[in-house]
Amino acid sequence: MSAVHAQNHNTLMEDPYPTRLSTPPERTWLPRQEAVLRGPEDGPLTREQRETFRQKGFVFIPNFLDDAELAEYQHELEALLERDDYRDRDFTITEPSSNDIRSIFAMHFLSAKFGELAQSPKLVKSVEQLIGEDVYVMQGRINYKPGFEGKGFDWHSDFETWHAEDGMPRMNAISASIVLTDNHEFNGPLMLIPGSHEKFVPCIGETPEDNYKSSLKKQEAGVPGREALAELVAEHGIEAPKGRAGGLLLFDCNTLHGSNANMSPDARSNIFFVYNRRDNALNTPFAARGQRPDFLAHTPNGRWRDLTL
Amino acid sequence: MSAVHAQNHNTLMEDPYPTRLSTPPERTWLPRQEAVLRGPEDGPLTREQRETFRQKGFVFIPNFLDDAELAEYQHELEALLERDDYRDRDFTITEPSSNDIRSIFAMHFLSAKFGELAQSPKLVKSVEQLIGEDVYVMQGRINYKPGFEGKGFDWHSDFETWHAEDGMPRMNAISASIVLTDNHEFNGPLMLIPGSHEKFVPCIGETPEDNYKSSLKKQEAGVPGREALAELVAEHGIEAPKGRAGGLLLFDCNTLHGSNANMSPDARSNIFFVYNRRDNALNTPFAARGQRPDFLAHTPNGRWRDLTL
Repeated sequence: MSAVHAQNHNTLMEDPYPTRLSTPPERTWLPRQEAVLRGPEDGPLTREQRETFRQKGFVFIPNFLDDAELAEYQHELEALLERDDYRDRDFTITEPSSNDIRSIFAMHFLSAKFGELAQSPKLVKSVEQLIGEDVYVMQGRINYKPGFEGKGFDWHSDFETWHAEDGMPRMNAISASIVLTDNHEFNGPLMLIPGSHEKFVPCIGETPEDNYKSSLKKQEAGVPGREALAELVAEHGIEAPKGRAGGLLLFDCNTLHGSNANMSPDARSNIFFVYNRRDNALNTPFAARGQRPDFLAHTPNGRWRDLTL
Repeated sequence: MSAVHAQNHNTLMEDPYPTRLSTPPERTWLPRQEAVLRGPEDGPLTREQRETFRQKGFVFIPNFLDDAELAEYQHELEALLERDDYRDRDFTITEPSSNDIRSIFAMHFLSAKFGELAQSPKLVKSVEQLIGEDVYVMQGRINYKPGFEGKGFDWHSDFETWHAEDGMPRMNAISASIVLTDNHEFNGPLMLIPGSHEKFVPCIGETPEDNYKSSLKKQEAGVPGREALAELVAEHGIEAPKGRAGGLLLFDCNTLHGSNANMSPDARSNIFFVYNRRDNALNTPFAARGQRPDFLAHTPNGRWRDLTL
């Protein structure tokens, strides 16, 4: 299926990132086609930070928010989570037992504060120093998990899903995660495989219909095989950046990442934006029958609103 | 129910450790009645190691096994796991998908090598330096988990289960876990709450019938409340001893512990013995209707064998 779809995009060019395969691939991974660093040297990020990103596929920037900003965004996050009219909406994820809201997608369209943050020069300029200028926000999300809650998430590449299910052609996107709570060894911090952004791991298993309804809670399709994971971890190891609330983690769309459960009483919350290059706008999915809903994947000039609100 | 059962043991004395309650307790925790250290100073453990155990409720001893012993026990563990006649037995736990054996109880009765290890002076003398002389092996187990497998285990006190379900009267037991694989941040090492051995947390929820059949995989009854856990972690923190294969972790029967999933390709295996004082032999369960099977909980002079083998 992927070869056929690739024709839609690239006029007879082979898709360099085939995935959701019905039979095991010949090679556990395929080389990345795009350069990792394509932005200008000048900007908020230092030369060392850009170099770290190039090598590892991620960089952690402590104290990205100052104390006043941190308090402001924590407050805004809490206010959105308490919105009764957001419960049972497509764009929110609620805890089955309590019906409490745990995640809100497209919050940069719902909240002026988060909308401003998404467009703030210190964030946008940092991203553009990495993947090049002229980016837009392809996805936004806030997450909140109380202590002792929050299951882990298996290893995966976001690009694999965006390519397969949203029709993202190339590795021209970056995730920006701002932690609003301290990250430590025991509250399930994000784990990453440094260097994995250079390798695309084709995944076995075709995409089920309406996959996003379950995959946002637990991913089944688009999970790399254990053999490939073992090979990558053997070569590159695992890192889990930790630090105080207010830090910013920038990671490449293809960096393999996962997380473990929160075994501590400390809540975890974060703000999450995906920046994509405008020349990499979403098109026909490469390995799924339908398009995912637009609260999950925005177009360059689209302004999302929930029509039922 | 616990007050009635306590009468069987202590002739009208109140059970100091009521649990599996139908209504929330008045206090989140009750003080431990027994001294932590009651053994002789002389023996394999140093003064500092005994003091660490007294304060934290656990002590980690690196390089307890030398390389030759390590290889010998790894080999013996593999040999037992490959025993076809052990599959589908009460005393083994198999992986549902593959039918591979993951845990074997009472292995010190099944294997002469593990039987000798359980009785080895350097292990028994270390334990006796902590809880006093005249101990016996109340439970033995080997565990094996391949990379990327092995779910986490929620916080719990072993004593709480042994008291409720096996009729262990007092906090006079110690677990000895010998790791046969390296322990690091990403393969789900044991986490402990230092100091929690001084506090008994009564748990809500009566014990279901044949609870052991599911509780060995995922514990539902005997899980401390989040409020109590949050209080204890706030006071004492969390520690996860890490180190090379061959290390020995000794932890008090009441030290709260748990673990997270193994996110790494590295297998995990360990040998596990529980030593109990003979004057603390198991009796009528304090908060369960039936006794658990004897592969899980041995009497001081009992010699277990599986009658179906």
